[in-house]
Amino acid sequence: MYAINMEQNKKELNIPDEIKIFDTTLRDGEQAPGIALTVDEKIKIAQRLDELGVNVIEMGFPTVSSGERKAAREMVSLGFSSELCGLARVVQKDIDALIDSDLSYAHLFIGTSPLHRDYKLKKSKTEILSQSMEMVEYAKDHGLKVEFSAEDATRTELNYLIEFYKGVESAGADIINVPDTVGILVPSTTRTLIRTLRKKINLPISLHFHNDFGLAVSNSLIGIEEGANQAHCTINGIGERAGNTSLEELVVSLKIAYGANLTVDTTKLYDTSNFIGSITGIKMPPTKPIVGDNAFAHESGIHVDGILKNSSTYEPIAPEIVGHKRRIALGKHTGHAAIKSKLEEFNIEVTQKQFDNIYNQVKTLGDKGKCLTDDDLRSIAITEIGTSGKEYIKLLGLSVMTGESVSATATIKLSIDGKIMETSQIGVGPVDASVLALKTLVQDRVNISLDEYRLEAITGGTDALAETFVVISDDKGNKATGRATREDVILSSVIAVINSINRILDIQENC
Amino acid sequence: MYAINMEQNKKELNIPDEIKIFDTTLRDGEQAPGIALTVDEKIKIAQRLDELGVNVIEMGFPTVSSGERKAAREMVSLGFSSELCGLARVVQKDIDALIDSDLSYAHLFIGTSPLHRDYKLKKSKTEILSQSMEMVEYAKDHGLKVEFSAEDATRTELNYLIEFYKGVESAGADIINVPDTVGILVPSTTRTLIRTLRKKINLPISLHFHNDFGLAVSNSLIGIEEGANQAHCTINGIGERAGNTSLEELVVSLKIAYGANLTVDTTKLYDTSNFIGSITGIKMPPTKPIVGDNAFAHESGIHVDGILKNSSTYEPIAPEIVGHKRRIALGKHTGHAAIKSKLEEFNIEVTQKQFDNIYNQVKTLGDKGKCLTDDDLRSIAITEIGTSGKEYIKLLGLSVMTGESVSATATIKLSIDGKIMETSQIGVGPVDASVLALKTLVQDRVNISLDEYRLEAITGGTDALAETFVVISDDKGNKATGRATREDVILSSVIAVINSINRILDIQENC
Repeated sequence: MYAINMEQNKKELNIPDEIKIFDTTLRDGEQAPGIALTVDEKIKIAQRLDELGVNVIEMGFPTVSSGERKAAREMVSLGFSSELCGLARVVQKDIDALIDSDLSYAHLFIGTSPLHRDYKLKKSKTEILSQSMEMVEYAKDHGLKVEFSAEDATRTELNYLIEFYKGVESAGADIINVPDTVGILVPSTTRTLIRTLRKKINLPISLHFHNDFGLAVSNSLIGIEEGANQAHCTINGIGERAGNTSLEELVVSLKIAYGANLTVDTTKLYDTSNFIGSITGIKMPPTKPIVGDNAFAHESGIHVDGILKNSSTYEPIAPEIVGHKRRIALGKHTGHAAIKSKLEEFNIEVTQKQFDNIYNQVKTLGDKGKCLTDDDLRSIAITEIGTSGKEYIKLLGLSVMTGESVSATATIKLSIDGKIMETSQIGVGPVDASVLALKTLVQDRVNISLDEYRLEAITGGTDALAETFVVISDDKGNKATGRATREDVILSSVIAVINSINRILDIQENC
Repeated sequence: MYAINMEQNKKELNIPDEIKIFDTTLRDGEQAPGIALTVDEKIKIAQRLDELGVNVIEMGFPTVSSGERKAAREMVSLGFSSELCGLARVVQKDIDALIDSDLSYAHLFIGTSPLHRDYKLKKSKTEILSQSMEMVEYAKDHGLKVEFSAEDATRTELNYLIEFYKGVESAGADIINVPDTVGILVPSTTRTLIRTLRKKINLPISLHFHNDFGLAVSNSLIGIEEGANQAHCTINGIGERAGNTSLEELVVSLKIAYGANLTVDTTKLYDTSNFIGSITGIKMPPTKPIVGDNAFAHESGIHVDGILKNSSTYEPIAPEIVGHKRRIALGKHTGHAAIKSKLEEFNIEVTQKQFDNIYNQVKTLGDKGKCLTDDDLRSIAITEIGTSGKEYIKLLGLSVMTGESVSATATIKLSIDGKIMETSQIGVGPVDASVLALKTLVQDRVNISLDEYRLEAITGGTDALAETFVVISDDKGNKATGRATREDVILSSVIAVINSINRILDIQENC
């Protein structure tokens, strides 16, 4: 028996047969500062969530704008497998807005904690409960499914919280939701709270946890261990402040370690996460579990060596399970095994002595704080096996004019295989003109297209360094990258392109 | 009694008097793909960790390079309050490297799971244990404090794991560490494992958890609930793959919810996190708990309204506790209360009708997906109360020349309050020259300094749009932002600065 035994764990926990994933990316996720989605974007996201296979999509808060109601109606018309739900305060106008949006699942809420009662709502416990019960009845009378949230449940008096949930249960609610509105639950308190509620409440229990202490996913798992039936999540965990329970983390833990029966298709997690990252502008760091760039990346010698011998050595699950890929990075921690494996991948054969020189160069660059890409390694290897670093093309002169109401003009002078050539071109801006002139001048030697041009973000004064990165390809399908850093953004761009051309000529000559 | 009762929680849990924070940012953190720190950077980080007040700083892996050993010796010479520790495999050369680095605390490790024994090490259980015991004795004989890790502990047979820990205990180890090397622990399995080890092992227990399922912090808390005495963490949770236990999240949970006695100064967490983000290049997303930009930011109407009435309504702790700040953002979810509070902050008085117009503009921009800054709101308000949008300064002409081996030169023609003026300047690049010429020309009207210049990352062709963002201030302390988007990066920069100058002149005239 292993120190931890997942099969045993699944048996002992005996979690409910079916755990539902209630996605609130479009409601609580969108409430995050800095996120504002258009109607079209909301519909696109809902389609992706439906394809992902979540049980419920909370589409928004219909009462707040006609845009929300329009989005809801369009989503309903698309006939998703996921149920569509909308948020509503316990006031008739909010519930009417939901009905008017063709929704049939209402998520009702009211603050129940003393802070919310006394400062925000200015109402007594009795008033809050009776208003809630009345509105549950109103919603049920109009044929809605009702999920009820006692907002700030975790800072509500326990006795009142139970009384409140029992009240909305008796009024006809279908499911109760437990919001940890400010994210103060920790493992021990989550266990105690959900255990107590499970004993007192007959309805299915849903969890809505915030991530202020970084514990939302784990608290949801503990709540499910204690008998909860549903968890509210968002893609990438986006939401108010530190966000909500991260859907991808919860789903993977539940499937892998709890053996839960979920409708979510885990192989779509990576793509869905990236899609939400682009559309909201909130990018995840490389260290984001499950979906981050580094989630299945390996650099250090010991780890890469292990991974190459057996991928399970340093991976909890295969990346394919979540639609991700394994990546071996190069840097100061890289060992022999990783570099050997890379060179084999590139089909570059080296002698032991050449290999040692390549290895030492990678280590030295790593010690200087540089991270190497595959292209960098290929270039180091090609240079080592006897040819390169050769400057087929050299910049001899560049003169650029631009301004208001006249096209940018660049004149460039190059040495190409020792032959001096010069030309000028106009462009939409000075960088464009310079690169066009450069391409024109080299086209008889090599026909390149610029696949990617990236001026890295620069913060500082106008005299800060501009770092340019380019990817080019030739008509044989070879690719090469180039990089340059100068105070002058135009020079930086031109030199990066020249570097990449020299590299592609190297590949043409040597590979 | 509240639904969750932190005081009760603290009493019932009875966690060990003193919990130690073992920081491994410089060792496991640095092993993350894409991170490579120089000796100087490592020393600077160690100083910040010492100031933060962690108990142990794992500084690196001395055997791997002379740079690591040099860094260790320099750190030792600085006389930190934090203990300094180094990593070593159970081989004499690694321990010698540690001694040679003047370190007196060794973190020894060897893989104990079948995967590590059979594929990576190709050694039997007995060989691994006897080699480990021998090296513990060697290290103790040389006066080192010894912490011992059974790598991949969570996938090691439980009986062998206990036998192994008892073995290194009998050989003289001072503390045992439990690495969840591939991050597969979940709440239930963590509880079972640490409870079992706590019963069998007399030494202090340390936890080293990985975040592959997003559970490292929570698992560490559960381990501490079960009697563990120390947790390995990294700033921002950086480390292999999805990283390690995030120091800031663990420390805040332990202090706030567990009443733990820690030496860490929480008010330094925000600054330390930002420092590590810059130096490693791994930036945290706005939703990062405790230290993210949004951790104490509020936008939605209901939340902002609550926060303004009582900040506890939607915050788990005061931002000052972690050295952070509260922020009210404006966008499509913004309500009346937030905008009123902002206008009061700016000292801008408006009539009800003016307020309604401002509110509607904010909502409309929000619906279009735009997020508004304080400056945007100020500008909308000033325009609304009757004055602005005025172009005090207009660009009439710009001509720029640059190239290789000659300084960039810009000639600019402006209309300033209707008067036409022209001048030229040289600079390190065309943008620098243009902005210098602009500043020179306006200096009699307004004396500005450029506080921030940001050329947003551009990906696409060389004819892509260049978006420029600037922050300027005048000598009265007023600040204004400017933004422009053009195909020509130079024009884009100049127009952004002119926009910001017009805005600051507005503020001077109207506030």
